[in-house]
Amino acid sequence: MTIALYPGSFDPVTNGHVDIAKRASCLFDELVIAVYDAPPKKLLFDTNERIQLFEEAMTGIQNVSVKKYKGLTVHFAKEISARAMVRGLRANSDFEYEFEMAMMNRNMDPSIEVVCMMTRIDYQFLSSSLLKEVCSLGGRIDNLVPKHVEKALHQKLASA
Amino acid sequence: MTIALYPGSFDPVTNGHVDIAKRASCLFDELVIAVYDAPPKKLLFDTNERIQLFEEAMTGIQNVSVKKYKGLTVHFAKEISARAMVRGLRANSDFEYEFEMAMMNRNMDPSIEVVCMMTRIDYQFLSSSLLKEVCSLGGRIDNLVPKHVEKALHQKLASA
Amino acid sequence: MTIALYPGSFDPVTNGHVDIAKRASCLFDELVIAVYDAPPKKLLFDTNERIQLFEEAMTGIQNVSVKKYKGLTVHFAKEISARAMVRGLRANSDFEYEFEMAMMNRNMDPSIEVVCMMTRIDYQFLSSSLLKEVCSLGGRIDNLVPKHVEKALHQKLASA
Amino acid sequence: MTIALYPGSFDPVTNGHVDIAKRASCLFDELVIAVYDAPPKKLLFDTNERIQLFEEAMTGIQNVSVKKYKGLTVHFAKEISARAMVRGLRANSDFEYEFEMAMMNRNMDPSIEVVCMMTRIDYQFLSSSLLKEVCSLGGRIDNLVPKHVEKALHQKLASA
Amino acid sequence: MTIALYPGSFDPVTNGHVDIAKRASCLFDELVIAVYDAPPKKLLFDTNERIQLFEEAMTGIQNVSVKKYKGLTVHFAKEISARAMVRGLRANSDFEYEFEMAMMNRNMDPSIEVVCMMTRIDYQFLSSSLLKEVCSLGGRIDNLVPKHVEKALHQKLASA
Amino acid sequence: MTIALYPGSFDPVTNGHVDIAKRASCLFDELVIAVYDAPPKKLLFDTNERIQLFEEAMTGIQNVSVKKYKGLTVHFAKEISARAMVRGLRANSDFEYEFEMAMMNRNMDPSIEVVCMMTRIDYQFLSSSLLKEVCSLGGRIDNLVPKHVEKALHQKLASA
Repeated sequence: MTIALYPGSFDPVTNGHVDIAKRASCLFDELVIAVYDAPPKKLLFDTNERIQLFEEAMTGIQNVSVKKYKGLTVHFAKEISARAMVRGLRANSDFEYEFEMAMMNRNMDPSIEVVCMMTRIDYQFLSSSLLKEVCSLGGRIDNLVPKHVEKALHQKLASA
Repeated sequence: MTIALYPGSFDPVTNGHVDIAKRASCLFDELVIAVYDAPPKKLLFDTNERIQLFEEAMTGIQNVSVKKYKGLTVHFAKEISARAMVRGLRANSDFEYEFEMAMMNRNMDPSIEVVCMMTRIDYQFLSSSLLKEVCSLGGRIDNLVPKHVEKALHQKLASA
Repeated sequence: MTIALYPGSFDPVTNGHVDIAKRASCLFDELVIAVYDAPPKKLLFDTNERIQLFEEAMTGIQNVSVKKYKGLTVHFAKEISARAMVRGLRANSDFEYEFEMAMMNRNMDPSIEVVCMMTRIDYQFLSSSLLKEVCSLGGRIDNLVPKHVEKALHQKLASA
Repeated sequence: MTIALYPGSFDPVTNGHVDIAKRASCLFDELVIAVYDAPPKKLLFDTNERIQLFEEAMTGIQNVSVKKYKGLTVHFAKEISARAMVRGLRANSDFEYEFEMAMMNRNMDPSIEVVCMMTRIDYQFLSSSLLKEVCSLGGRIDNLVPKHVEKALHQKLASA
Repeated sequence: MTIALYPGSFDPVTNGHVDIAKRASCLFDELVIAVYDAPPKKLLFDTNERIQLFEEAMTGIQNVSVKKYKGLTVHFAKEISARAMVRGLRANSDFEYEFEMAMMNRNMDPSIEVVCMMTRIDYQFLSSSLLKEVCSLGGRIDNLVPKHVEKALHQKLASA
Repeated sequence: MTIALYPGSFDPVTNGHVDIAKRASCLFDELVIAVYDAPPKKLLFDTNERIQLFEEAMTGIQNVSVKKYKGLTVHFAKEISARAMVRGLRANSDFEYEFEMAMMNRNMDPSIEVVCMMTRIDYQFLSSSLLKEVCSLGGRIDNLVPKHVEKALHQKLASA
C-alpha cells in the first residue's frame, strides 16, 4: 500500500491545488495533504483556516486527509509512512526550485520519492501569491478558487 | 486607432525603458506610459519624480504621454481604451514572470493584448534594481541612463 | 499606418496560428501572413496548399492577406513596408530561439520591430510537427486545427 | 490497483533508466516498461535487443514486465489499463519537452496521469545518445550502464 | 602571472564552495577568496567568522588567501590586480543571475574576466540558504559542509 | 604553467569565437585552439580551411596555436597536457548542453577543468549555423566575422 504526501502552505488552496490533489488521490492508496504549520506572520490565513479550506474542497473523497505539520517535510513523511511526496509542476517557474528541494530531500532520506504531476493547463499561471494580489486589487478570481475560498478571501481581505 | 499602454514602476527610468518606449511609439497611434503609483516605501523615487524623469526622457515625441495609475493594470488599460499592453523582454530573466502575468491579465480581461518587444542587446543586463545597487556602490552608470536620471540618482542617493 | 508581418512555415496552420493572426489583425492596420516558400522536401504541404489553408481560416477578416515569400524575412518585410514582425510565444520552448532570431534580424535591419504575442493557454503545447506526429499515429486533433485543416491532414497522410 | 507505464526507446537502457524503473516499481502495484517498436533505422539496437537488455537489468523484481508497443503511447496505456505514465526528469534539459508531451497526451486522454520522477544526481548528464557517442570514441562508460549493456554496446559498435 | 578572485558571502562556506576554490587554485597562480563585508543583519555569521571558516577549509593550500572587501567587486578585483573573477555555476538556477552580473561588471571594467566553473554534481542542489534552513529544522548536513562548519552551524543556531 | 584548450568545429570562426580566444589567451599561459577534424560531409569548410581561417584571425598573438584533433576532447586535452577546457557561453541557449558535456567529461577525466567565459553581448545571438543561413540568403554579416572569413564564406557559398 502506497501512502502519498502532498505538502504545502496552501495560503489559500487554489483550483490548481485541488486538481493535483484529486488526481493524486486516484493514483495512490492514501493521500495526506500536509499543511505547513508556519507562524502566521507572512501568511494571510492561519494553519487551521488553511486546513479547513482544503478539507472542504476535498469533501466526498474517501482516501484523502488533511493534516498540519512542523519541521522537515521528509521527517513528517517518515512519521506517517509515506513513500511518495507529490508536487505540482507548472510549465515555467517551478521546476528549478522543485529540483533543488528534491535533491536535498533525497540527501536526507533516499527512501521517500518525489513525484511531480503537471498542473492543468488552465491553472498554469496561478499561484497563491498572485491570487492574493489580484484579489486585493479587485480582480476576477471566481474561476481560480472554489466558491468557499473566494468567500473566505474576500472576508479576510476586507478585515485586513 | 490603437492605444498602447506601457506600465511599470520605472524607479527610475533607464535607457532600456526609453528604448522600448520610443520603439513602441513608432508602432502604435498613441502610447501611454503608466507609472504605478505605489506607496514610496520600498521605492527610491516617489510617483511624481518617476513621472517627471520619464517625461523628460520622452521630450519631443508627440504621441506619448506619461500617467500615474493605481489598482489592476488591466482596469487602467480599459479606462484609457488601450488595446495593447507593451512589455520589454530581456533575454534571460523576464520571460517566465511576464508569461504568468499575461495569462492572469487575460483571465481578467481577454480584450487587452500583451505585446512583448525585445530589449536592445546593450541593455540586456540592465534592471532598475541592479542600477541602483551599482550606483550606490560608486559604479559607472553614465551609459545606462539618460543624463538627467544619472544626476537625479546621485542626488537622491547622497541625501539618503 | 502600421503594416505587420506574420511569417512562418505553417505546415499546416493550427488553431494556435489562427488565434495569433486574429489578435494581431486587431492591433495593426494591416496584417500580411507570409508563408515561407521552402522546397517541399521536408514539408507535408506545398506552398500553395499552406497558403490556401491559412486563407480559408482567415475568411471574413478584412485587413489580412496571405502571401508567399523567399529569402530573408527582413527583406520581405521591407518590400511590403511592414514595420512590425509578429511572433507567437509559447511558455516553454520558443523564447530562446525567437530571441536569437530577433537579434539577428535587428542586426540586419533595425527599422523592423519584432513583436511577440503570447499563445493562448489552450494551445501552449501545440506545434505543427507534434500535430503531424499525433495525427499520423491516429490521435485526436479535432480541437487543435480548423475543420478544413483536419480534413486536409487526413487526406494528405492517407495518400503518403 | 495502479498499473504504471514507463515508455521510451531505451537504445540502450542506461543506469539512469534502471534507477527510475526500480524506484517506480516501489510506488506502483505493477510497472510495465514499454519499449517503442520503431523501425531500427536510426537506432543502434533492434526492438528485441532493447527489450532483452532492459529485462536482464530488471531480473529479480517481481512486479515489472517489459513489452514492446507501436502507435500512440496513450493508446497503449489504455490497452494495458495503466493509470500512470512514468517519466524521468533530468535537471536541465528534459522538462520543456516532457511538459509539451504531457499536455498533448492529456488532450488525447485525460484519464492517464503523467508522473515525473527526478533522475538520480549521478546520472543527470546521462542520455542514451551521449552515451553512444562517448562509447564509439573510446570513452569510459562502465559506471553509466549495467555490465551486460556495456558488453552489448562494445560488440554492436565493433560490428558497425 | 594570473591572480583570480573568488567573491561571495559564504554564510557559511559549503563543500560546494570548497570544491570550486580548490579547483580554481589549480588553474591560476594565485587565488584570493573575497568575503563580502556586509552588515551582519541578515547573515548568520559575521565577516570574521565567515573568513575563519573558509580559511580553515583551505588549510595547506599555498596559493590561496581569504580577504574581506566592501563596495563593488570589480573595484576590489582591480585593487588586488586580479584578472579573473571565478564563479561556481549550478545546473539549474545560477546562470541567469551570473550572466546579468557578468555583463554589468563588464560594463564597469572590461579588463576583468568572469570565469565560470561547473559545481560538482554532488553539490548541485546545495546553497548556503537551503543549508541553513535544513540545519535549523534538524536535517542531515554532515556530507554538505566541512566538519568545523557543521559544528559552527550547530553552535550558532543553538544560541540564536 | 596552465595550458588551456578551446575546442570546437569553428565552421567558420566568428567574431564571437575570436573574442573568447583573445580573452582566454590573456588568462592562461598557453591557449590551444582545437579544431574538430570531422568528416566534411555536413560542414561547409574542411578541417584545414577551418584551421587557416582561425589562424589568420589570431595573427600576432604569441601564446596561441591552432591544431586539429579527432576522438574525445578529454583525450586530446590529456595529450597536450591541458588543464583547462575553455567554452564560450551565450545567455540563452548554450548552458544546458555545456553542462551536460562538462559532467560527461568530468566522468571520463576529472583532472581537466571546464572553464566557461561569457560571450560578449554583441555576439550573443551569433552562431556559425545562423551565420551561414543568413549569408546564403544575402543578409549582412560584415560585423559578425573577420573580413577574411566574410570573403571565404561568399566564395564557398557561390561555388556550392
